[in-house]
Amino acid sequence: MANQQTQQKQIVTSGIRPTGELHLGNYYGALLNLTRLQDQYDAYFFIVDLHSLTTHPNSADLRRNLIGVARDYVAAGLDPEKCALYAQSSISDLIGELHTYLSMVMPLGELLRCPTFKEKAKKHPDNINYGLVGYPVLMAADILIHKGTLVPVGEDQVVHLEMARTIVRRFQQIYGDLFPEPQPLIENAVRIPALSGQGKMSKSDARDSYISMRDESDQIQAKVKKAYSDPARVYKHQPGHPTIEGCNIYHLHSFFTEADLLDGLAAQCQQAAIGCADCKHHLATSLTSIVEPFRERRAQVSDDDVVDILTIGGQKARASAELVLAEVRSAMGLRTF
Amino acid sequence: MANQQTQQKQIVTSGIRPTGELHLGNYYGALLNLTRLQDQYDAYFFIVDLHSLTTHPNSADLRRNLIGVARDYVAAGLDPEKCALYAQSSISDLIGELHTYLSMVMPLGELLRCPTFKEKAKKHPDNINYGLVGYPVLMAADILIHKGTLVPVGEDQVVHLEMARTIVRRFQQIYGDLFPEPQPLIENAVRIPALSGQGKMSKSDARDSYISMRDESDQIQAKVKKAYSDPARVYKHQPGHPTIEGCNIYHLHSFFTEADLLDGLAAQCQQAAIGCADCKHHLATSLTSIVEPFRERRAQVSDDDVVDILTIGGQKARASAELVLAEVRSAMGLRTF
Repeated sequence: MANQQTQQKQIVTSGIRPTGELHLGNYYGALLNLTRLQDQYDAYFFIVDLHSLTTHPNSADLRRNLIGVARDYVAAGLDPEKCALYAQSSISDLIGELHTYLSMVMPLGELLRCPTFKEKAKKHPDNINYGLVGYPVLMAADILIHKGTLVPVGEDQVVHLEMARTIVRRFQQIYGDLFPEPQPLIENAVRIPALSGQGKMSKSDARDSYISMRDESDQIQAKVKKAYSDPARVYKHQPGHPTIEGCNIYHLHSFFTEADLLDGLAAQCQQAAIGCADCKHHLATSLTSIVEPFRERRAQVSDDDVVDILTIGGQKARASAELVLAEVRSAMGLRTF
Repeated sequence: MANQQTQQKQIVTSGIRPTGELHLGNYYGALLNLTRLQDQYDAYFFIVDLHSLTTHPNSADLRRNLIGVARDYVAAGLDPEKCALYAQSSISDLIGELHTYLSMVMPLGELLRCPTFKEKAKKHPDNINYGLVGYPVLMAADILIHKGTLVPVGEDQVVHLEMARTIVRRFQQIYGDLFPEPQPLIENAVRIPALSGQGKMSKSDARDSYISMRDESDQIQAKVKKAYSDPARVYKHQPGHPTIEGCNIYHLHSFFTEADLLDGLAAQCQQAAIGCADCKHHLATSLTSIVEPFRERRAQVSDDDVVDILTIGGQKARASAELVLAEVRSAMGLRTF
């Protein structure tokens, strides 16, 4: 039995936030990462519309964002044949049930000490709900409902995953060995620098500091034109410093421009044979060659396609969740009527 | 529409704790009260096996207690034709889902300040779970899942019901008018005094201080024989004080003995014509005439009968809960896939 289990495919689960506009940093980080994971593992990817309820969005926004973000992920390459892509709310009954059970074993103190809770509580002191402190419990339910074994996590999520592991151990002490302890899958996180040169691309910065995956070619050209480049090259006749540390534009090129072309540009820059404007024009072209095909694929995915994909994904997720919950109820001695 | 609603029968919901042995105080208080309510209202009565999970009972005990307590209530007169008698866990998916939604609107601070939480946390400092502080949220879900309008409450539960009302108001602010604010149904709580004369009958006191509904006639005689009576009547030749304040035995008689017989006993007592032993013998006979028929009815209810009744009750509860949850999801903009 143990042998059989180790031979089974690992089960990867990952939550997707249903928040508006996608930028190049997300795309190269989170989205392409998930498209790789669906090839390697049994994959359950879910849009966390229930989690977003802690901030009380209105229903119309919630639905629009859900459809929009699902379309992004399908355009990026998530394939309903390879993974289950679903809205968390499609199995809200089963998630709610497991969340309720897990809430009975999770120590309150650990939740109150959680740094992300403290931060949110500080930011919104007028909206500290019971559900807000329980965020990691709901997240644990998302993972454990499929007996997830691997969870791709950013640095800020490591502490939440640790709580899911705490819940697994506490559950085990009381009801026996049922859930595997989910392991973090720490990817080489791709951090695309902001156009402003300040940190990584982020939607919470000024609109000019990131490339939206909805930007048209001329918008990309305009944004890159204003981007921060080599601060040590004041005049065009000065040689530049085309390294990751020396020039933000070079840093961006290093992700998106073919090595041969980039080497040529770097050599010319060091000889002051080209100016920053030329170099930026090439970068904008490289970025457009990523963004434009994505925009085209995205345009081909209709609302109906998205609904179909989420419906199928919801069915897959429900089938998996029901098997696990049946085991949970039996271990806890529940649902005999 | 408003008119139509006010003409509808009120919906009464009440939770039943799945705890062991029943005594005369429970029977005369909680159980007979519910049998009256089922005649007047749309009644949903549920055994709160999910709530009991906060204390981590083992599965076998949980099931045994569940069956046992359901049998008690059926023997007391709950009629599956008149009410839905079910185990909370029979609709654990729907309760869990609503509990999760409501957790997003309930302020954490109010829960942490709740006196019953503070008391439990003090009693079991090593087992303060997230679910423990959320007890009133789960209780609100139990009521609101049927749009309950009336809840019979003891003094200690008034604060919990107030929290359910808080949740209704907060939900309304965000998602509109969906739930009625449940009202407390404060019955003239019958407080059967303990045989010891110390407070009301309670299972947590010594076994001799309460009459179990499983006691046989000779056990009842023996317990009543030792019961506390009139402290001012030391010798049989002294006249007694047959009033509720003056004599604990008279107080007990007042609930269970026919008025004519009791008046006669009181007159003889005041004249010192009978002693306490005689009077106690009559009381024991009165108590036996309550307990014995109950024991006989209880013996006639088989495990299979109980399972059938709980199954039917679970189906009724599910039908009602699904209608309400459909409205909730729609108001919140969820479950469109």
